[in-house]
Amino acid sequence: MAPVTNARVLFGSVPKDFPIPGETTVYDTSQTIDLDNAPLNGGFLVKTLVLSLDPYMRGKMRSPEKQSYSPAFIPGEPLYGHGVGVVLRSENPEVPVGNYVYGHFDHQQYRIVESMGKGGLEILEKHPKLSLTTFVGALGMPGKTAFAGWREFSKAKTGEVAFITTGAGPVGSLVIQLAKRDGLKVIASAGSDDKVKFMKDIGADVAFNYKTTDTREVLEREGPIDVYWDNVGGEILEAALDNANINARFIECGMISGYNTGDQGVKNLFQLFAKSITLYGFLFSRLYHKYDEEFYRTIPPALASGEIKYTEEVHHGLDKIGDAILRIQKGENTAKVVVVVAEG
Amino acid sequence: MAPVTNARVLFGSVPKDFPIPGETTVYDTSQTIDLDNAPLNGGFLVKTLVLSLDPYMRGKMRSPEKQSYSPAFIPGEPLYGHGVGVVLRSENPEVPVGNYVYGHFDHQQYRIVESMGKGGLEILEKHPKLSLTTFVGALGMPGKTAFAGWREFSKAKTGEVAFITTGAGPVGSLVIQLAKRDGLKVIASAGSDDKVKFMKDIGADVAFNYKTTDTREVLEREGPIDVYWDNVGGEILEAALDNANINARFIECGMISGYNTGDQGVKNLFQLFAKSITLYGFLFSRLYHKYDEEFYRTIPPALASGEIKYTEEVHHGLDKIGDAILRIQKGENTAKVVVVVAEG
Repeated sequence: MAPVTNARVLFGSVPKDFPIPGETTVYDTSQTIDLDNAPLNGGFLVKTLVLSLDPYMRGKMRSPEKQSYSPAFIPGEPLYGHGVGVVLRSENPEVPVGNYVYGHFDHQQYRIVESMGKGGLEILEKHPKLSLTTFVGALGMPGKTAFAGWREFSKAKTGEVAFITTGAGPVGSLVIQLAKRDGLKVIASAGSDDKVKFMKDIGADVAFNYKTTDTREVLEREGPIDVYWDNVGGEILEAALDNANINARFIECGMISGYNTGDQGVKNLFQLFAKSITLYGFLFSRLYHKYDEEFYRTIPPALASGEIKYTEEVHHGLDKIGDAILRIQKGENTAKVVVVVAEG
Repeated sequence: MAPVTNARVLFGSVPKDFPIPGETTVYDTSQTIDLDNAPLNGGFLVKTLVLSLDPYMRGKMRSPEKQSYSPAFIPGEPLYGHGVGVVLRSENPEVPVGNYVYGHFDHQQYRIVESMGKGGLEILEKHPKLSLTTFVGALGMPGKTAFAGWREFSKAKTGEVAFITTGAGPVGSLVIQLAKRDGLKVIASAGSDDKVKFMKDIGADVAFNYKTTDTREVLEREGPIDVYWDNVGGEILEAALDNANINARFIECGMISGYNTGDQGVKNLFQLFAKSITLYGFLFSRLYHKYDEEFYRTIPPALASGEIKYTEEVHHGLDKIGDAILRIQKGENTAKVVVVVAEG
């Protein structure tokens, strides 16, 4: 077979505020690959099936001289993140043809992995009732972030009150359901009326659209809060601090309010000692291993049975990635965003 | 004996920024008391000997409608805080004449306590080698704050690095010495060269004057820090976040930088998840009981032997309280501020 296009999505340039499709992220079709004959050098050839797009990617769209917990994207090189693929050819006995693999994926259609062993990828067991997209969402990094963060830090007690931001997203929606399982009253916020409906469907006792309803008023009426799951930072974090109960636990998972337009500063941190509040900052990669066994034992069956619910916003094709990334940063996505690059 | 003056220090009015002696705090000699004949109604008469002045008092100089963890001072009524006194007359067998008592003291020379039992006061055992002023400083709320906060939250490990602010004060100076006992490298800051000398004398490995040396530069050179003892908040907290190690513990004890001139906001809280930092907010009154037994077993002997060092800035007379409070808020005090109202 003649070489085929190996389309990619490249990091174009550092955005000033929101990422611009076509500038920050560039869809490129200049490369080709000979799928039958490209040398594997003892490795294997993977076809990308599913890619995950997540809020944290904005942090990697920066100048490389700015230090952070995760390396910057390299201009001219593909974006990357979690993904799922299938092995088309292999010279590596650990990774046979036809296997599904999960892990680090460049944003391109095909990739030859020449690394030792599995090249950091995991062989996936497809679940008969769960789609491959699940493995980058409810069963992937977002699901594990929710599970490990809640288990490690919430110290949840029946009858307490939890406030969960971005409650319709892949992290927040699982946190809502974990909090309800633990017997808490759940207040949840998101940025559209559809998301509010979804949060009520999955059990939130109080769900509201933060764009049309004042968070402070809701927390004053429904609080004080014992557990705060923070995905946004900024003014909402200030409102949560002002409406926290004594000995509240704040789980600091993300701060999307400051990613694109800069952090305005949190001015009421005196509430930390006034109310003996603890803020737990955590990162998925440093924590999830501790809860992996429990996660795989409990969550896939609960997702398959429908006992735990999740939603996805599915885009089709690598060329949609630039727009989809912008949707996430603007909070316009309706659920966890996944890109189906090719059907399995 | 004829009635004598019972001088008081009253809360005059809410200050805009720094408290103003004579306006915010008013020395008043209009009351008298008949020490021999004033009716006790089953209670006891206490003569005030020592009063403690502390940074947190600024938080009580506010409008009463502003909620906080500690009630506002009442205009026209005396200030109050921790103090030590001696019992002059008593009709209460639990509190015999001549006993020294510790606890809540109004800022006035004499007070009749008509409450049940000991009226919230503790009977003090005078230590032969420690002055009465010690009981509101190294052995009082500041000492117990340092001890309980360090024990509960530092999770200190030999070889780690601690950064301690207001390190020449009664809290910070004990924290420095506890950190050195636990085998940490200690970086400590304060606002004068005399204080820097004192911090070095008590064991700080790196001590600097934050008014003449850039905190950020010191932390970049001597860090990253594993434990941060925060008494100041604001820009210094930002510098500590930027120079924290992975899994750092921040002990949030106070934020004097924002008490008088307003909080400018902390803009880099994303470091919480970037570095898996935990911020522990705590308040003396909710924690110290847990460590009281260990504190009294270890600290008084160490103070008496000189193994643990402390300093005090002693003022004489109730009429000095307004100026002394301002010195604390401006950071001009050289050590823990105590007021000797009368000699024991």
